[in-house]
Amino acid sequence: MEVENILHMKKGDGQNSYANNSLLQKSVVTKAKPVLQESIREMYHALKPDCLMIADFGCSSGPNSLLVVSEIIDIIDNERQRMNEKSPKYSVFMNDLPGNDFNAIFKMLPSFYQGLKQDKGSDFGACFISGTPKSFYGRVFPDHFLHIVHSSYSVHWLSQVPKGLESKSEEALNKGNIYIGNTSPQEISKAYYAQFKRDFVLFLRSRAQEMVHDGCMVLTLQGRFQSNDPGSLWDLLGSTLNDMVLEGIIEEEKLDKFNMPFYAPTIQEVSKLVGAEGSFYLNKLKSFTVDWSVDSSQNLENRANFVAKSIRAVTESLLDTTFGAAIMDDLFYRFKIKVKKHLSCKESQYLNIVVSLIKTRANLY
Amino acid sequence: MEVENILHMKKGDGQNSYANNSLLQKSVVTKAKPVLQESIREMYHALKPDCLMIADFGCSSGPNSLLVVSEIIDIIDNERQRMNEKSPKYSVFMNDLPGNDFNAIFKMLPSFYQGLKQDKGSDFGACFISGTPKSFYGRVFPDHFLHIVHSSYSVHWLSQVPKGLESKSEEALNKGNIYIGNTSPQEISKAYYAQFKRDFVLFLRSRAQEMVHDGCMVLTLQGRFQSNDPGSLWDLLGSTLNDMVLEGIIEEEKLDKFNMPFYAPTIQEVSKLVGAEGSFYLNKLKSFTVDWSVDSSQNLENRANFVAKSIRAVTESLLDTTFGAAIMDDLFYRFKIKVKKHLSCKESQYLNIVVSLIKTRANLY
Repeated sequence: MEVENILHMKKGDGQNSYANNSLLQKSVVTKAKPVLQESIREMYHALKPDCLMIADFGCSSGPNSLLVVSEIIDIIDNERQRMNEKSPKYSVFMNDLPGNDFNAIFKMLPSFYQGLKQDKGSDFGACFISGTPKSFYGRVFPDHFLHIVHSSYSVHWLSQVPKGLESKSEEALNKGNIYIGNTSPQEISKAYYAQFKRDFVLFLRSRAQEMVHDGCMVLTLQGRFQSNDPGSLWDLLGSTLNDMVLEGIIEEEKLDKFNMPFYAPTIQEVSKLVGAEGSFYLNKLKSFTVDWSVDSSQNLENRANFVAKSIRAVTESLLDTTFGAAIMDDLFYRFKIKVKKHLSCKESQYLNIVVSLIKTRANLY
Repeated sequence: MEVENILHMKKGDGQNSYANNSLLQKSVVTKAKPVLQESIREMYHALKPDCLMIADFGCSSGPNSLLVVSEIIDIIDNERQRMNEKSPKYSVFMNDLPGNDFNAIFKMLPSFYQGLKQDKGSDFGACFISGTPKSFYGRVFPDHFLHIVHSSYSVHWLSQVPKGLESKSEEALNKGNIYIGNTSPQEISKAYYAQFKRDFVLFLRSRAQEMVHDGCMVLTLQGRFQSNDPGSLWDLLGSTLNDMVLEGIIEEEKLDKFNMPFYAPTIQEVSKLVGAEGSFYLNKLKSFTVDWSVDSSQNLENRANFVAKSIRAVTESLLDTTFGAAIMDDLFYRFKIKVKKHLSCKESQYLNIVVSLIKTRANLY
């Protein structure tokens, strides 16, 4: 599966769009903000550049895209005002895969610039926003180009489905699962980790080359509590797809071949890989949970609806390529029922890991 | 008229799209290439940067957008191969107004990168392409950021319709014309020149701040042969609109208020303004003509069709905002008839001016 060509959040502004179903991601950005704040302040005081070069990797296209940009600008602008210093300029790069809807972000820019002017007053430095479409598993920017790297809810997406899983023999290796499930053999979770390791190290290495010394990088991604935790939400989605196989709506072979290009590492895996790659100093590592439905005080129906919609917004482009657009409504209706049942009796928290890294002076490459 | 919000080439890949009707612009790029070639070679030898920072202002969205990028890369890559030098990296910024269809360019990038890899071989440096949506009449990039600035067929578009023309009194000032016409009073051409002067100087000043010393800028724009030359193609379009007013298809008041946000300067005007602005050394100035229909050996019907389609592709977004999308087919059918008649008996050449400028060390701002 060529993930780069088909992975994107659901486009447009319809009821199933990512733009209208990205409150989970917003909540994660908000909870990670204290780490972002501290890290950027430290970097700013250490470097004080005339023009801050900032990149958001996996910016997607929705209200959160420019929210992150404006948070970063706010942090620095508050700091320089507090210190009574001249405003720096800001050059911001929004990165995502080429299939991302950059036009939708760009259309918001005139009013975004207008808002900055009004909020920050006349002594605010200029802000220049660009879009840079390219897989972040590999180089995206020139050498020593960036001061601040941010990425939220993106590096848990793999560059591809782990090898060994795709090329199937007579009997599918990961039968009945679309991710590491309760019934998956151990080689499945090994293959997933191996792919994550390759991707994550490539991500770190690429960013290390693109960043200036002492530049800061704040990454937020989904994690899992323990290495033997299955991904229970993907379990529910897999079991929904299985039901549809049993009813003859989906061909068994299609499901056998389908696996999510996703991996939620443990905290230990993340810190181990950062250390092993060697270009960054692990400045902070925090974790926090968010309920699948963000707001667990809502009633079950609302919560299940929320979960189904937020998962649909991020997986539909992957799922409809394999299973066809025609069954999406049915699939997510069934999924919602399963989620509702799960929410009524089981744990339903995402673990989120936020790491703040500083590019060390020693560059090994 | 808020030109920034409505000026864009006709989107999509339909029969009236800019993507399918941009052979004129391609022909202009091709004819301007020798100047581009010389200028870039000189700059490259003077500066030899590790990573070339390149911006194309007014890149639009069609086959020409990446054609220009690949020409610039070819020029430098040939030169460094000839000199047996290591390949630099390339960071390319595609600029246009926020309404431009950047997604369409971005979708071509994976195959563009693939093609570069194949053509240039393994010792070719990386190439990073971004889109930067913002009016080029004002700052778009950080200070001292760019080595190469290119712009073709863009700076003859004004930031707005000249003032005095828009705010009309009882009797429209430029009655029966949509640009400087045979019957326009002299204050019309003065107002047009004043607007061009303001815009062009702002363009030069903004680029001067964004460019490194000894960076090169190559601009191609439509010009006119003599200062009293009316724009005969806009005359034909204006007279077509007039016919439709007389037939009651268009309200007279709408036509009275409509003027093209366009100005084709003389060679003398361009060189005078470059000198007056003061940040650039005028390295080369060439002019060349291109037939309205590009290929004057074609039969009249084909030529008239070509002209009507290429003008439609670049003006439809302006025209349908004022006159409504419903009359566009009718308008351009009538226009084609007029163009055909004109081509059969009159001069039908665009004058094109290409200037190569070098950013001087003295920066006055």
